Amino acid sequence: MRWVYVILGTGSIALDTTRTPFKTMKRVLGGAATYFSLSASHFCPVALIGVVGKDFPQAHWKLLESRHIDLQGVQRVKGKTMFFDSEFSYDYYARKTHATELNVYAHFDPVVPDSLRKTPFLYLGTLEPAKQLKMLENCRPRFALMDTIEFYIETQKPALRKVMAKVDGMVLNDIEARMLCKSPNLFECASTIQEWGPELVVIKKGENGSILFYKDFVFPLPAFPLSSVVDPTGAGDSFGGGFFGHLARSNKVEEKTLKEALAYGTIMGSFCVQDFSVNGLVSIASEDVEARFNHYREKLHI
Amino acid sequence: MRWVYVILGTGSIALDTTRTPFKTMKRVLGGAATYFSLSASHFCPVALIGVVGKDFPQAHWKLLESRHIDLQGVQRVKGKTMFFDSEFSYDYYARKTHATELNVYAHFDPVVPDSLRKTPFLYLGTLEPAKQLKMLENCRPRFALMDTIEFYIETQKPALRKVMAKVDGMVLNDIEARMLCKSPNLFECASTIQEWGPELVVIKKGENGSILFYKDFVFPLPAFPLSSVVDPTGAGDSFGGGFFGHLARSNKVEEKTLKEALAYGTIMGSFCVQDFSVNGLVSIASEDVEARFNHYREKLHI
Repeated sequence: MRWVYVILGTGSIALDTTRTPFKTMKRVLGGAATYFSLSASHFCPVALIGVVGKDFPQAHWKLLESRHIDLQGVQRVKGKTMFFDSEFSYDYYARKTHATELNVYAHFDPVVPDSLRKTPFLYLGTLEPAKQLKMLENCRPRFALMDTIEFYIETQKPALRKVMAKVDGMVLNDIEARMLCKSPNLFECASTIQEWGPELVVIKKGENGSILFYKDFVFPLPAFPLSSVVDPTGAGDSFGGGFFGHLARSNKVEEKTLKEALAYGTIMGSFCVQDFSVNGLVSIASEDVEARFNHYREKLHI
Repeated sequence: MRWVYVILGTGSIALDTTRTPFKTMKRVLGGAATYFSLSASHFCPVALIGVVGKDFPQAHWKLLESRHIDLQGVQRVKGKTMFFDSEFSYDYYARKTHATELNVYAHFDPVVPDSLRKTPFLYLGTLEPAKQLKMLENCRPRFALMDTIEFYIETQKPALRKVMAKVDGMVLNDIEARMLCKSPNLFECASTIQEWGPELVVIKKGENGSILFYKDFVFPLPAFPLSSVVDPTGAGDSFGGGFFGHLARSNKVEEKTLKEALAYGTIMGSFCVQDFSVNGLVSIASEDVEARFNHYREKLHI
């Protein structure tokens, strides 16, 4: 069977060491683009653009392939895979970073194979703004969604603004939104971001849910209620994958689909945090996704 | 027409000076019980137990009466009404307290008139735990809901636990819940509170919505989306009034009614913050409440 890829995603692929008071997982599969792709793969075929080093375990590669993620755009180069070592304290709110080694990701130059250039939905995960822009210009997708991180907001805001001016949507967390727009009011932040470019803005608030802004439409959702969290790593990227995955498979950007997509994002984030690494995303079947979606939708039906 | 009072509420009645970067309102009507009652009065007849000083403006008294709030349990005594002076900075998140003068509230001894003792729904607003207990023992209501504040959690926890053991429900904010239960996880807090007494726990998270716990049922809601806030004072008490008001008028405590009640609480909080003092609560009609409720319900329908 030949897959027609609906989402092209890029960003980091990493090995993570994650420490919690209860367990430490060493050099497990991580990275924003990894979480995003595995989450989105529950919705439609995904092709990934990224880079790993020679140390990247074959088992991880096979895991991504087993989810029908196209890896022809993933370069395997000499050197070490990006490595991230962090620790959560008992309250799981503050994360302490022990090490961020970019390794091969530092010199990553995303190259989109010709066969993937017409993929309609493009996700520009965390990447230097100049590289995001290059991907965007190479692909000219139907709909482009971008993410960013505090580091690029602080150090490369003009370049970031150039990408923002050309994308259709932006997903970011509340801290990033406030930092980017210099306002504590998330509604003002969304409005500023919309003025700068994307008409769709999704602000993620972790355990406090999310708010979506599309033109004049505003839509808030609470987090899916979970009594405990095993590992919060990747929750936001899994959220992005569920959100964009549903938009892409629906091939529509309108209020009804956006509401559903935000709900799918919410539940994919909830699956992610219930286990270490990407285990929460790969141990579930489509039926589990639909069952939790229906449960959540029913719950919110007042 | 003779009103049958459905809710008996108690707590503080105050004069507030509220400063924001844009406007200062001096000695306006405030106090937790005031906000609660005015909010609940949109749902069912409310009788208030409280105390004011001789300086309490007649206009405020008449305003409460105009909302059919029974004031026979409000003592008007020699001395000054409780006074609260606070200031919000530009971000409206941190409130700085300039003065808290308890005045006549310091020696308040709640007395419930005989005619009101059989009121079925009792709201024990912020009050010394011993006085909450006295009210509870004098009334023996069908359903008692309590609130508290950080001050009593810090200084009178054993007395607070005695009240908690006897009520049916507790409403508190996220900071109070974490302080009371010594856990950052709100699900753990709710579970601890339920072990200590009330089977219904509502945790308010301000602009991040709320979570309701009733036996094993968990129900989260986002805040009603508002692009700007004029004065956050009283939002939580207005929330409580809408929540309890709908429960009381429905005369049922079950999942469906609790979901509706949490939504009514949410929208009453949103009306409150759209104007200074109690203006956001008294400038609206029942139709406005129902219209916003329907809008909110429709919005959350995925």
